[in-house]
Amino acid sequence: MTTMTWDRTGYRINGRPEFLISGEFHYFRVPPADWRRRLELFKQGGGNCVATYVPWAWHEPEEGTFLFGDRPERDLEGFLKLCRELELFVIARPGPYEYSEMVYHGLPEWLVKGHPEMHAVGMDGKRRWQAAMSYLHPTFLAKTRNWFAAVCPVLAKYTVSRGGPIVFAQFDNEIIGIHEWFGGWDYHPVTMGFGKADGRYAKFLKTRYTDIAALNRHYGTNFLDFASILPHEPAAKTIEERRRARDYHDFYLDTIAEYCATLVDWMREFGIDCDTCHNCIAPANHVNFRNWKSLATNCIVGVDHYYALGMDWEQNNPTPKYAVRMFVEMEMVRALGWPGSVYEMPGGSCSDFPPITPEDAHCCYMLHTAYGMKGLNYYVFTGGPNLPEIGGMTAEYDYQAAISARGEVRPLYHTQAEYHRFLHDNAWLAGSERVADMHVGLDWTTFLKTGFTSRQDDMVADGEAVQLLHKGFLITAHCASRSPNLIDITRGELPTDLPIFIPAAACMAADIQRRLIAFAQHGGRLLLAPVLPHLDEQFRPCTILRDFLGATPPKLRLRSENLAAVCVGPVSPHATIGDIWEMPAPAGATVIATEKFSGATIGWKQGNVIWLGIQWVHAFNEELTAMRWLLDQLGAPPPAVDCNNPNVWTSLRTDGKQSMLFAMNLFSAPMACRIRVKQFDTGEIKLAPMEVRTFLIP
Amino acid sequence: MTTMTWDRTGYRINGRPEFLISGEFHYFRVPPADWRRRLELFKQGGGNCVATYVPWAWHEPEEGTFLFGDRPERDLEGFLKLCRELELFVIARPGPYEYSEMVYHGLPEWLVKGHPEMHAVGMDGKRRWQAAMSYLHPTFLAKTRNWFAAVCPVLAKYTVSRGGPIVFAQFDNEIIGIHEWFGGWDYHPVTMGFGKADGRYAKFLKTRYTDIAALNRHYGTNFLDFASILPHEPAAKTIEERRRARDYHDFYLDTIAEYCATLVDWMREFGIDCDTCHNCIAPANHVNFRNWKSLATNCIVGVDHYYALGMDWEQNNPTPKYAVRMFVEMEMVRALGWPGSVYEMPGGSCSDFPPITPEDAHCCYMLHTAYGMKGLNYYVFTGGPNLPEIGGMTAEYDYQAAISARGEVRPLYHTQAEYHRFLHDNAWLAGSERVADMHVGLDWTTFLKTGFTSRQDDMVADGEAVQLLHKGFLITAHCASRSPNLIDITRGELPTDLPIFIPAAACMAADIQRRLIAFAQHGGRLLLAPVLPHLDEQFRPCTILRDFLGATPPKLRLRSENLAAVCVGPVSPHATIGDIWEMPAPAGATVIATEKFSGATIGWKQGNVIWLGIQWVHAFNEELTAMRWLLDQLGAPPPAVDCNNPNVWTSLRTDGKQSMLFAMNLFSAPMACRIRVKQFDTGEIKLAPMEVRTFLIP
Repeated sequence: MTTMTWDRTGYRINGRPEFLISGEFHYFRVPPADWRRRLELFKQGGGNCVATYVPWAWHEPEEGTFLFGDRPERDLEGFLKLCRELELFVIARPGPYEYSEMVYHGLPEWLVKGHPEMHAVGMDGKRRWQAAMSYLHPTFLAKTRNWFAAVCPVLAKYTVSRGGPIVFAQFDNEIIGIHEWFGGWDYHPVTMGFGKADGRYAKFLKTRYTDIAALNRHYGTNFLDFASILPHEPAAKTIEERRRARDYHDFYLDTIAEYCATLVDWMREFGIDCDTCHNCIAPANHVNFRNWKSLATNCIVGVDHYYALGMDWEQNNPTPKYAVRMFVEMEMVRALGWPGSVYEMPGGSCSDFPPITPEDAHCCYMLHTAYGMKGLNYYVFTGGPNLPEIGGMTAEYDYQAAISARGEVRPLYHTQAEYHRFLHDNAWLAGSERVADMHVGLDWTTFLKTGFTSRQDDMVADGEAVQLLHKGFLITAHCASRSPNLIDITRGELPTDLPIFIPAAACMAADIQRRLIAFAQHGGRLLLAPVLPHLDEQFRPCTILRDFLGATPPKLRLRSENLAAVCVGPVSPHATIGDIWEMPAPAGATVIATEKFSGATIGWKQGNVIWLGIQWVHAFNEELTAMRWLLDQLGAPPPAVDCNNPNVWTSLRTDGKQSMLFAMNLFSAPMACRIRVKQFDTGEIKLAPMEVRTFLIP
Repeated sequence: MTTMTWDRTGYRINGRPEFLISGEFHYFRVPPADWRRRLELFKQGGGNCVATYVPWAWHEPEEGTFLFGDRPERDLEGFLKLCRELELFVIARPGPYEYSEMVYHGLPEWLVKGHPEMHAVGMDGKRRWQAAMSYLHPTFLAKTRNWFAAVCPVLAKYTVSRGGPIVFAQFDNEIIGIHEWFGGWDYHPVTMGFGKADGRYAKFLKTRYTDIAALNRHYGTNFLDFASILPHEPAAKTIEERRRARDYHDFYLDTIAEYCATLVDWMREFGIDCDTCHNCIAPANHVNFRNWKSLATNCIVGVDHYYALGMDWEQNNPTPKYAVRMFVEMEMVRALGWPGSVYEMPGGSCSDFPPITPEDAHCCYMLHTAYGMKGLNYYVFTGGPNLPEIGGMTAEYDYQAAISARGEVRPLYHTQAEYHRFLHDNAWLAGSERVADMHVGLDWTTFLKTGFTSRQDDMVADGEAVQLLHKGFLITAHCASRSPNLIDITRGELPTDLPIFIPAAACMAADIQRRLIAFAQHGGRLLLAPVLPHLDEQFRPCTILRDFLGATPPKLRLRSENLAAVCVGPVSPHATIGDIWEMPAPAGATVIATEKFSGATIGWKQGNVIWLGIQWVHAFNEELTAMRWLLDQLGAPPPAVDCNNPNVWTSLRTDGKQSMLFAMNLFSAPMACRIRVKQFDTGEIKLAPMEVRTFLIP
């Protein structure tokens, strides 16, 4: 076999940049007699890897009885040997959780039914749904270790270092999902150690606060010791409750990290020596992994990017709103140091309606490529009969996949093959980067699940900053033919070559505020909206950035029906969908935005820094002009791409030698446009619905 | 001029069925010098009517100063004369409310600012947003009457009976919207007369309960007299609270009815003799009009049918989910006795993003035609400069309209003209009806705004029944190539020719339950899901239907993760997205559905009646088979249309002499299909994204 390496720019096979093209292939569902034909079809279609769950429930049907070869559908080694023979890499995902529309999400029934004591619980003591376990519960860990002790040695024999096909071993799946989907975080008293001086929670708090008096000051409480502290659930109201909620949030993520590290340790102990990986639930769950040092060096994190899994999904096809979410995900993964990877790329859908059409799917794949995806795994490439013992949903696990449950080749197969030909023909894209002409700053804490902050009084919640990013800056930027890179403002040196737009909430760590001040002092150009932070991430007063700018607290100015219209520079007044905030310009600053009816100041420029009191939501073409004008004020370079139709979005990728322009029509109707990149000019072109057209630029 | 009449089947011009093709045309926004050219463009494009607001704020800028001719943009008569000259009908909408993205929604500033006492308030006494008035407040009525006294005589001169162009005069606009959008219903103590024995609310309750003891029994309260009763807000929990909330709901609708009747009376008093009309907010607000007898005979009600007005809308283009909502609206309007009318048909959007493309818009128009729309008014056909005094949003009111604010002809204009040619070429469609092969029963109360019912214990809320209709029965029916008519089960004789599917909630009026029993006794075939009602509409125990069937209370069986799979007849088991309910088959009944894992009975057939304990949500193709099997069990006729692609939806319309088949692709990708209607066969065809293709069947 060959080697597979990776860094933030992409994957390398034998040192050469290549796309990872994987397809989910469940040996336990696909009829074994058809394994070879379907795998060969995938390989012929341009794939180089398959991924599979290795379901605990399937291989340990009774406790202590591990079955890996009693029937062909359990012949894991046979499957791995076949993949080796066919020179397909393998991503092995032994759980403990799989989900995969299986009964109990892939856990054995004997485990779930026999051990109610380890089910996750809420703060009210009520159990979450029955397959939601408390990850670190000693019983769950002990049973999982038994499973890993049985399955990992089987997998270990087939890692790449041993001439096998396995390049990545995934621990668990879509971590936290099982809690979040079924009621919320886990507050299991045994696992978390509530009420005990040496309990995990007490120890966490003691490390954070050292003495109980400090904690009581912070919480506004009178606890006698760390052991007696119970967390406050999200939906906290007061600052003190928010602090307790956020502490538990940090603690909860620590327990997840410990769980992940434990699983990885066991994988290593039982012989698995390839890199590990994890498939995160959207949105932005991968941010949780950013500080998990023990995993970071040889662990790669990807994401799930479905656009429609049923009728309750907002869209039936990739839309601009979907594209922006995917853009953010790809940018975050890149900023965190991983190659853009989608470990569940829509290869169908778990329901039959709405349909996943080849045209929509192709658009989805191409827009990901435009935004920097370097590796993907179709979920699923093919299914099969749904094992009656462990399969939920339907008699066949068909998934509208490229190869049907019964083995027929569907049009989607040819679409995927065509897409793979594009990737192979343009292999240089595997090492390419997107050309940016502005920066958007990311404060990771903003993106963590933030049920514990909400709009209260004049306090802008983290979630609102995320909204401003998705529905404001980024939609406008894409429509205005600007190309932002998202950059990590929490560490490393901030590049001063391009202005940074920052969606700012009430809270921002003191350290980040200081970094932004230093950035501005060194010539960095900055725009913050809709407020300036006045608290740190632990909700302590912290106005160093505001003080640096000489600013006063912004005041929420409620939009009184249609009475608010914003005037940004010379741009003609227009209504805004979001709230607006007013604040007089500090000494030395220039007013750059006002509200038309009241004349209130809602934006000013102080040195290199613009504050804009608009909870930006894209609605009008005037906003395109406003963004361009604001970028001009901050001395941004001209746009990398000039497209004359705001509804055709573009991306320009380069490896330094050649470039490729992606032009995307994410609507159900044709779109005409003309695009220029320096000397290059597409002329008048018309894109079909869902068409992503590429242009090589020498 | 000519005459315009209407009944439930459509509009008639001079006695001949014709489509009403209207375009919103704001004389106060369109530059007067361009009125004639733009009106002629509309007429040349096939239109026969224009609609316009007559904004109070614009014509009474200061109290008592009525201006109708001081500047060309206020020359209402000049505009009406021009319409008469060009032989365009006019729908005049003098308010008091217009909305129309105007400051204060079209009310004069002096009124809003000068009379805070008449602003609508919540139960907490807090004022709703400032332009939300308490409709029946004496001051608001007095000021409105002054406005009507000024504007109605101007309009009255131009009604059709007097040789003028005005065929309909609209009272108010999107009634209730101003309350619902801005905080909720109105609880103004003066308007509603709280605390007074002769107050409107006390009188309403006295009429309903006669004596206070009866009310106290019903409410579980100890009120001393009717005057002291305060309503309970929606989000009621107990049965008694629900009763109070629903009483207020009924009362509130009565106040709206009284308000409407008052406005109509004044229109008559001031000389307007044409029919009146009203443009309802979606969804299903027109149901409120069903009992307003004083308006019903000469009042026509239409609806608003936007698919995208900005980024917060679910879809960018007409989708199947949108189509189902529109289908229900058209069917409800028909069942209520009006011709299908869309008084705000997307002629653009109040924001620039997402774009309203000609292709999407055409699809929207055609699907409405397929579902029985007989009259429409594009909102807007054209805009213009947004009057600085009263216009919100942007400097120009452009609306992405067919004719831009500046007067340019956009591609959408040609698309609309093409659509009008289709309507003119197939004028017989104006009197056509859709061919149905099953019935879905509508209990109107289910569709009223029902915040006061919610799932509690085993009680299925009205809103859940509406969901079952939209996301269950109707999506499956459309995918299964079945064509349901929605029928009013609250009055008239129930037709026994086709089986009726009824989405049933916990509450159903005793009278309706009795009607269904009589229907079954006379050979009517019935399916009820997911429960059988056990309360009447006032939340009194009422199990006559259940008793008739010999049934026991259904028991909610929570879907435990993926552990619930339904088996309907011989259809292979499949998971369901909705909850399921179990109930043993009563004596004499046959089990027709079970849950796979538990074996629980979740459906049975008793005589002609099927009960199915599934909160139907369409997800799998198995559900198509299940619906077909259930229809077979109820002896339904073969489908009117046979389409081999569940993602191509159809409609068959006929006037008895000829028929037209509509085949609709509501997806962003092409769809192949083959459709048969008796001897007629389309052969293999491929529909482009958003294409609605028609076939004339002799």
